[in-house]
Amino acid sequence: MPIKTVIIGSGRYLPELIIKNEEFLTNEFFNDKGEKIPKATKDIINKLQEITEIEERRYLPAHLNTSDMGFFAAEQAITNAGIDKESLDYIIVAHNFGDLQDHNRKVDMVPTLASRIKHLLQIENPDCVAYDLPFGCPGWVQGMIHADYFIKSGDAKRALVIGTENLSRIADPHDIDAMIYSDGAGAVVVEGLETNESVGILAHKTRTDTLNHAHLLNMGVSYSADFPDDTLFIKMNGRKLYEYAISTVPTLVKETIEKAGLHISDISKVLIHQANAKMDAAILDRTFKLFDIKEWPKEVMPMIIAKMGNNSVATVPVLYDMIIRKELEGQEIKSGDNLVFASVGAGMNVNAFIYKVP
Amino acid sequence: MPIKTVIIGSGRYLPELIIKNEEFLTNEFFNDKGEKIPKATKDIINKLQEITEIEERRYLPAHLNTSDMGFFAAEQAITNAGIDKESLDYIIVAHNFGDLQDHNRKVDMVPTLASRIKHLLQIENPDCVAYDLPFGCPGWVQGMIHADYFIKSGDAKRALVIGTENLSRIADPHDIDAMIYSDGAGAVVVEGLETNESVGILAHKTRTDTLNHAHLLNMGVSYSADFPDDTLFIKMNGRKLYEYAISTVPTLVKETIEKAGLHISDISKVLIHQANAKMDAAILDRTFKLFDIKEWPKEVMPMIIAKMGNNSVATVPVLYDMIIRKELEGQEIKSGDNLVFASVGAGMNVNAFIYKVP
Repeated sequence: MPIKTVIIGSGRYLPELIIKNEEFLTNEFFNDKGEKIPKATKDIINKLQEITEIEERRYLPAHLNTSDMGFFAAEQAITNAGIDKESLDYIIVAHNFGDLQDHNRKVDMVPTLASRIKHLLQIENPDCVAYDLPFGCPGWVQGMIHADYFIKSGDAKRALVIGTENLSRIADPHDIDAMIYSDGAGAVVVEGLETNESVGILAHKTRTDTLNHAHLLNMGVSYSADFPDDTLFIKMNGRKLYEYAISTVPTLVKETIEKAGLHISDISKVLIHQANAKMDAAILDRTFKLFDIKEWPKEVMPMIIAKMGNNSVATVPVLYDMIIRKELEGQEIKSGDNLVFASVGAGMNVNAFIYKVP
Repeated sequence: MPIKTVIIGSGRYLPELIIKNEEFLTNEFFNDKGEKIPKATKDIINKLQEITEIEERRYLPAHLNTSDMGFFAAEQAITNAGIDKESLDYIIVAHNFGDLQDHNRKVDMVPTLASRIKHLLQIENPDCVAYDLPFGCPGWVQGMIHADYFIKSGDAKRALVIGTENLSRIADPHDIDAMIYSDGAGAVVVEGLETNESVGILAHKTRTDTLNHAHLLNMGVSYSADFPDDTLFIKMNGRKLYEYAISTVPTLVKETIEKAGLHISDISKVLIHQANAKMDAAILDRTFKLFDIKEWPKEVMPMIIAKMGNNSVATVPVLYDMIIRKELEGQEIKSGDNLVFASVGAGMNVNAFIYKVP
């Protein structure tokens, strides 16, 4: 019988520390030319909230690191799956900045975060292969796609796929975009299931656009000339990113749905990466339009950005975990549902997979 | 017919700048407790050469970066393969420190190096998925294993697998181990070949040991208390690493050879990662001993460490490229040869694949 990749458990970690928009009132914001932005900080904050819908975000406390968050989410996913942790064949960790100590913010990913998390989980089994997957915000979705290859090949039975990111420590306090970033981790355990039924990961697609888009998200020094050192922060060209996302994501999502032999009317939920609520709404408008549908029910695209901000690779698995645990109001996932998991981010990379709940 | 993964081209980039052991004569060396090592620097250097057999190493010039090296090696591999670069389905880049500008040595891997290299190669095809694979020194071998999964699944036809590393910029000048590190890049193009013959990647195995070994290689500040800042350098516990490598690599290599249905007497070459020549000799002694063989012909394990140092993920593909181009004296690879590609490094990770030359 053919092997299908199904989710058997999930977990998340969201730092307790909530940073509300007001806390940026004392920041001084500059543009990418180092010029002070000629607007009241209050107006800047309100405008950002209006566009992104972000009201607050989570920040990791100083004594913890990205790998710790991944470990907390992983531990919960393993418990939720009810499996022996030694039975895992893979631990795949999506992240983009490694561990960044609060007092020394330099990317540190030797050993890999996957090795650090496997160490924290105290897994002994040497055949459990642990590796990192930097792939921009779509890293966790891509990790699921990798796991699907290993499982469908018959070589692996179980994989733990983690997305963990600490954006607060690479956010330039003098860049408006700093307000978007947040910290968190999500994890799922997937397993190979031998069945003739059409369940689990039905289809996936990925694209990487680099000719004109490779550097829309990159690393740079602070926008403030007075910043005391040359720490590297994440920088983005928001306008071009928006254009890129709304022109590529709908097509890719449509192609993936069709690759699974489905129509958008068969899709119960779209669990999509969230960096900007208006952008996600535009993406879904266009996706439905590609199927000649003008209106779509709001609950198809569950949103958590208002309270969570953009926590990169963590967003999609956190969203899944919140819904499956019935902790997101008005949302539920039922057996037989077809879900789209999709993401877009640095690379530029766009990906999606269609998942039928067993 | 079944699909086999075969190498159709290779390339390398080795910086021109050669740093001989004498150039470390003016360095001041400290131990991990920050105590000055009570020996003449000349004696320290001679001892290191005696153990590792390293005489010189290559350093990347200031204006170039890790992704540039990967690009140069990739360009050569694509030309050597004689393929249209737009026909690639994957670009997989093994590295562990991202790009490190010479004047600002902070890991920078957003966008991924794979995206940067795809951009430099000016590949337009969005279906060519580009991602990074941090996995310690075994990253390139692991990238080949990933490519094998994508190709054997039927989803991918061609992949470019690159290993590129700039260790000179994360080497602490006050740590004896700094003398081991070197820079370079290697790349191969692999392709799916439909054939009933037993060729290409026949078998592979990987292990990750983290319970007691996760932090044998890690990042830390300079051993010198006078170092002006908190730049992170690579640090290793050499003695424990040696013990780990000689106890795990031989077993894994034996298991991989047997998984391919072969005996060590069927193996023409072992292309192994090189961090210490004495350690590699001990690994091969033990591997042959596991097959009850006491002596092995020296040419089975081609060595380049004396002139190249340890350039991490680059070593194995560079070695392959030098031999296949007949640029390594007394070495050749012929059709029908069974080769072992193997590596060990940070994680700790150990891996190997058996490759039968078509």
